[in-house]
Amino acid sequence: MSQPTNFTPGPSQLYFTVEDHMRTAFREGIPSLSHRTKKFEGIYKDAVDGLRELLNLPAGYSIYFTGSANEIWERIIQNLVAEQSFHLVNGSFSKRFYEIAQLLNKKPIKAEVDFGKGFDDTAIVPAGTELIGITHNETSSGVCLPLEYIYALREKNPDALLAVDAVSSLPFPDFDYTKLDTVFFSVQKGFGLPAGLGVWMVNEKCIAKADQLLSKGISIGSFHGIPSLHSHAIKNQTPETPNVLFIYLLGKVVQDFIRRGIQNIRRETEYKSTLLYQALEKHSGVKAFVQDKKFQSKTVIVAQCGDQTEKITASLKEKGLHPGDGYGAFKKSQLRFANFPTHSKEQYELLVDTLERL
Amino acid sequence: MSQPTNFTPGPSQLYFTVEDHMRTAFREGIPSLSHRTKKFEGIYKDAVDGLRELLNLPAGYSIYFTGSANEIWERIIQNLVAEQSFHLVNGSFSKRFYEIAQLLNKKPIKAEVDFGKGFDDTAIVPAGTELIGITHNETSSGVCLPLEYIYALREKNPDALLAVDAVSSLPFPDFDYTKLDTVFFSVQKGFGLPAGLGVWMVNEKCIAKADQLLSKGISIGSFHGIPSLHSHAIKNQTPETPNVLFIYLLGKVVQDFIRRGIQNIRRETEYKSTLLYQALEKHSGVKAFVQDKKFQSKTVIVAQCGDQTEKITASLKEKGLHPGDGYGAFKKSQLRFANFPTHSKEQYELLVDTLERL
Repeated sequence: MSQPTNFTPGPSQLYFTVEDHMRTAFREGIPSLSHRTKKFEGIYKDAVDGLRELLNLPAGYSIYFTGSANEIWERIIQNLVAEQSFHLVNGSFSKRFYEIAQLLNKKPIKAEVDFGKGFDDTAIVPAGTELIGITHNETSSGVCLPLEYIYALREKNPDALLAVDAVSSLPFPDFDYTKLDTVFFSVQKGFGLPAGLGVWMVNEKCIAKADQLLSKGISIGSFHGIPSLHSHAIKNQTPETPNVLFIYLLGKVVQDFIRRGIQNIRRETEYKSTLLYQALEKHSGVKAFVQDKKFQSKTVIVAQCGDQTEKITASLKEKGLHPGDGYGAFKKSQLRFANFPTHSKEQYELLVDTLERL
Repeated sequence: MSQPTNFTPGPSQLYFTVEDHMRTAFREGIPSLSHRTKKFEGIYKDAVDGLRELLNLPAGYSIYFTGSANEIWERIIQNLVAEQSFHLVNGSFSKRFYEIAQLLNKKPIKAEVDFGKGFDDTAIVPAGTELIGITHNETSSGVCLPLEYIYALREKNPDALLAVDAVSSLPFPDFDYTKLDTVFFSVQKGFGLPAGLGVWMVNEKCIAKADQLLSKGISIGSFHGIPSLHSHAIKNQTPETPNVLFIYLLGKVVQDFIRRGIQNIRRETEYKSTLLYQALEKHSGVKAFVQDKKFQSKTVIVAQCGDQTEKITASLKEKGLHPGDGYGAFKKSQLRFANFPTHSKEQYELLVDTLERL
C-alpha cells in the first residue's frame, strides 16, 4: 500500500513537493546558512514576494515571521491593543485569542456563540474597542465565517483594527486585504509544511498603532515587536536567528502554488469540499456537524459520527485514509477532514467512496 | 573538493548525522505528525531525557522549547523579574539581554566592561536585584566567563535568580546546575542543528517566581509563560503546535552525543581550541583578540586579523574553510572560529596548518 493520507487539520499532510525541496536545501547548505548573508536575504525576499503574489497582497502590507500562530495572537495583542480588544468567539481557537488578551492584562470583551455556530447578525462592537479579533475558520468546529460578514464588521467599525486568524483557511480564501488590517496563518496547514513557523501580515495602520503604543510608554514586547520586525523586514532580515530552513521551504512551496495557479487551487478546494459535504448529506449515519451551509468550512470539514466514530476511523485507516479526531470534548463523536492544496481530488474521491460504503 | 567546513559561530556547520536523521524523519512521517499524539510525546520525552543525561541536569530542572534564544531572553524577563534585573554586559549579546529588559518596561541595571573583556572582581549586585543575567560565552567577542566566577555571583547573592546564557557554549561547559537557576541555548550552535529552536532550562525557584508574579497580577506573557509551558511539559506536551521536526532532530543528535561521550566531546574541544590559540600565539600577523587566557572562549575563538582579514579569509576559503566574520564593528578586522562538536580534529588541524602558512 502507498503512504497513508493524513487528513488531520494540522499538522496535516505535507505538500507533495516538500521532501524534494528539503533535499535541495541540504545540497545547497541552507540548514547551516547564516542569516546575516545576502543569500539569506534572497531567500527571505523570495518567500515574501511569493506570498504577495499568491495572495494578491496590496502594497503597504508587510510580512513577518514568528515561531507559531500562538505567538502571533500574543504579538497582535501586545502591539495593537492598549486596553480593549473585542473577540468573536465560536470555538476553541477564537476563545484562545480572547484568553491571550486577558493573560496580557488587557480588557478584552467577547461575543460568544455555541461551538459549531457562526454569527448571523453583525456583532455590536463596544465603544472603545481598538481591535476586533475574528477567526475566519475555526479549526476546532469547522465553522467558516463568510467574507461579507467580516468586511461588514470593518465597515461599521472603521476606527478599530480588524485582525483575522486565517490559520486553517489560507491560501484558499480570496480576501480583499484592503478591508482587513492584519491576517495570519501557520505553515503546517494549508501550506503543507512542517510546523514551526507563523506568518504575520500587517498593514500600515498596524505599524502606526504599535508606534503609538510605544510612544505612550506601553511595552509592545521586545525582539518581535512590530518596530523591530519591521526595521529588519525592510532589509529582508529578522531580529533574531530565524528558522532559515522553513522560510526557504515556504518560498519554494509558494512558488509551486503560483505555478499551479491559485484559481485552480481554489476551484479544486471547492470541488473536494462539495464532494464530501454531499456524501455527508446522503449518508444514513454520519452528518455534517455544521448544518448551516453558509458557515460550512471548505478547508476543515467536520463530520458528526456519534458512536460510529471509532468504527469509521478504523475503516478509513484500513484504506490508508487518516482522519483527524474531533476537537476537545468532541474527540470521540466527530471526525475532522482537512481539505488543503496537498489533498488531491483522487484522495478525496477515495475518501468519499469509502465513506459511502460504510 | 569535499564540502566546505563552516566555522561561523551560528548557524554553524550541521552535526554530521543531521542529514541522515532528516531522511529518517521523512520516512517516519515526523514532519506532518500531530503534536497531540502519543508518538509526539515520546519524541518530546526522548529529547528532554537525553538532554538531562547529556548535561547531567539535576532533578527539579524542567526543559521547555521556544522559537529562539531571543525569545528566551524575553520569557526570562517576563516570568522572573517584577522590576529589577542586573546584567553583566561585555559584548553585543549580553547587552541585548539588558536591552530586552528595558523594552519590557523593567528597570534593569548593568555593569559593563569593554568589548573583548571579562570581569575580574565579583560584580557588586545592587540591592533589590531579582535576577542576574550573565552571558557565559559572548559569541560576539569570544570572551568566556570562568565557571567559578559565575558560581561566586550566586553564592554572594543567594536571593537573586541566576540566569546563564549558554547559547554558544553548551554542551561543552560542565556546569554545576545546582549553582544556577536558569540556563538556555539555541540548537544551531553547539548542537549542530538548523536554526529555529531555543531550549530553556529552569529550576523550581524559577517556577515559583513566575507563580508569584502571576499572583501579584503582573503579566508574564501568555502561551509561553512558565505555568503554561510547565503544565504541558509534565505531560511531554507543548502549549502551541511546536517545531516537532526539530525537537525530533535534537533528540537524535543528543543521543549521538551521549554515544560519543560528553567527556570525549569536552576533551576534543579543549584539544582543538589549544591548537588554534597556540597557532595564533606563534603567528606573526594574526593574534587572539582575547589576550587574557582565563577569558579565552574554547567554543568561539576570535582572531584579530587587522588589514589582513580579507586576504586570510580568501586563503582559508580556497581550502574549503569558511571562517565567521567579526561581529558588528569588527567585521573587517576580526575572524571568528566556532569550535563545536561537529568540527573534527582533522578540520581544526587543516585550519591551523593553513593559518600557519599565511
